[in-house]
Amino acid sequence: MLPVLDHAGIFAFAVSGALMAIRRDFDVVGVAILAVATALGGGILRDLVLGDTPPPAFTRWAYLAVALGAAAVAFVAHPLLARLTRALLLFDAAGLGLFCVAGTVKALEHDLPVVAAAALGVTTAVGGGLLRDVIARETPALVRPDSELYALPAVAGALAVALAWRAGAYGPAVGAGAAVAVFALRCLALQRHWHGPRARAATTSTPTTTKEQR
Amino acid sequence: MLPVLDHAGIFAFAVSGALMAIRRDFDVVGVAILAVATALGGGILRDLVLGDTPPPAFTRWAYLAVALGAAAVAFVAHPLLARLTRALLLFDAAGLGLFCVAGTVKALEHDLPVVAAAALGVTTAVGGGLLRDVIARETPALVRPDSELYALPAVAGALAVALAWRAGAYGPAVGAGAAVAVFALRCLALQRHWHGPRARAATTSTPTTTKEQR
Amino acid sequence: MLPVLDHAGIFAFAVSGALMAIRRDFDVVGVAILAVATALGGGILRDLVLGDTPPPAFTRWAYLAVALGAAAVAFVAHPLLARLTRALLLFDAAGLGLFCVAGTVKALEHDLPVVAAAALGVTTAVGGGLLRDVIARETPALVRPDSELYALPAVAGALAVALAWRAGAYGPAVGAGAAVAVFALRCLALQRHWHGPRARAATTSTPTTTKEQR
Repeated sequence: MLPVLDHAGIFAFAVSGALMAIRRDFDVVGVAILAVATALGGGILRDLVLGDTPPPAFTRWAYLAVALGAAAVAFVAHPLLARLTRALLLFDAAGLGLFCVAGTVKALEHDLPVVAAAALGVTTAVGGGLLRDVIARETPALVRPDSELYALPAVAGALAVALAWRAGAYGPAVGAGAAVAVFALRCLALQRHWHGPRARAATTSTPTTTKEQR
Repeated sequence: MLPVLDHAGIFAFAVSGALMAIRRDFDVVGVAILAVATALGGGILRDLVLGDTPPPAFTRWAYLAVALGAAAVAFVAHPLLARLTRALLLFDAAGLGLFCVAGTVKALEHDLPVVAAAALGVTTAVGGGLLRDVIARETPALVRPDSELYALPAVAGALAVALAWRAGAYGPAVGAGAAVAVFALRCLALQRHWHGPRARAATTSTPTTTKEQR
Repeated sequence: MLPVLDHAGIFAFAVSGALMAIRRDFDVVGVAILAVATALGGGILRDLVLGDTPPPAFTRWAYLAVALGAAAVAFVAHPLLARLTRALLLFDAAGLGLFCVAGTVKALEHDLPVVAAAALGVTTAVGGGLLRDVIARETPALVRPDSELYALPAVAGALAVALAWRAGAYGPAVGAGAAVAVFALRCLALQRHWHGPRARAATTSTPTTTKEQR
């Protein structure tokens, strides 16, 4: 079951990268690069930090194959995929939950302290999307004030996993529970338009933001 | 012969980074940073992925010296270099061919599978230019729809090298042939304005693109 | 004394990242990400290049705690901090001096040649700010023509440390002297508005720049 979800997450992340490349009218290479960077970038960053080189994204061919396959599917079938936004957001939320738990556990296996392991787990989950936005020259969705909660559910899930691990209470059930909770929180945030707290009061900041973004 | 071409490629890549910095009116530090990132960034990325640390770009002083030397030459002689655009594009195409072959071979020596080795070879060849564009806040030439074919020739050359390697048929002649073929394809693409295929039909996408890029 | 200054530098870098996130109206996650990337990004880059994984930024919890603490302080007290710009620039200059010396020494301990060690020391000092600007989609302050000298003092300090090391004359006093000199040069540059030399004559370049930046 888990490998299936793992590859579904990679597929969803890759499609989100490919669709952004198509929207920006990039050519076939741009589509492949953005798909691979989005799907595998977060895990590669994690593995470089942990010194696990070459990263599994390069040594286990299925990861790269799924990401390139998703790019090919998006290249051909993008009008269809653009209508499936809802389904893709669900896949993406599943990837967010799975990747943050898997990244945190791998960091804990390498003996990182609790907070650092959680930070690396979150990096695994959100790093690919950040790379996608930097390469495509978009303001990262990760930090944009109009994005629904994305990293915060991952932070909560990663911290829960890391604390359970330190308490000696970690097991597959805890991991699955955390991934499902992250998935559910993200879906709720999308449905109810939850946003993260900001430092400036919304009333004073709105005009400034509008001006800045012109 | 090969080391000479290797350093010529680094020189060409460094000049392309330095000239972009000068066009953007960056100061001397910006020129040096962009030259070094363009010339050595792709190889450093490859070496981090392969776990070959510290990367040769740091331990073999000639690489850094050539990149900094190119930055110095460009800083002083940029009006001349700006007239040599054609020659520089040839050097850059030579660097593309050499770096994608050298990167793929190094990845294969580290036992990466065929597709992953080719992907890392392409990363070696195009990673520096991508870093240059991200730092200078340009839409990466790598993915821009108006760029002539750049990564596709490298993809073809890297795959050819990786498949020959797996078939036990790799030798210096194959490597040289692949590098020359990449070089020739890139030059042809420049001369005949070949562009990569895009997912959206050109007729429907053109107005959107124009609007987006304003 | 040194650890205190080390953490003061991380604090200052983190505050500069957090304040930029707040100015851009990012949410609480964006503030934390930008603070951590600015404060720890340069050192993590250095450690990845040197193969020192996982980097101390992940294994020694105090670094991450100081960076996240600075983000929390900035999130709450940003109107106060915005009035303390002067003090923050002093902290930042102290961080610049300390990080470039510490980075160069660590690179020399890993047997890098003189120029490469200095380059890695400068990367340690300026890499975090570069990451901050790339993530926030600002033209990097590091290369902007209107920035006061920032990297050049670090280059001078890092080269001095590396040359002293090769001459067998390095000791704590030399390191402290270099850090103080970098700090003083940066402060002087801020006070007297020193800018780095540019390749194009100011008279001819100004109109072009203005047009380009619109």
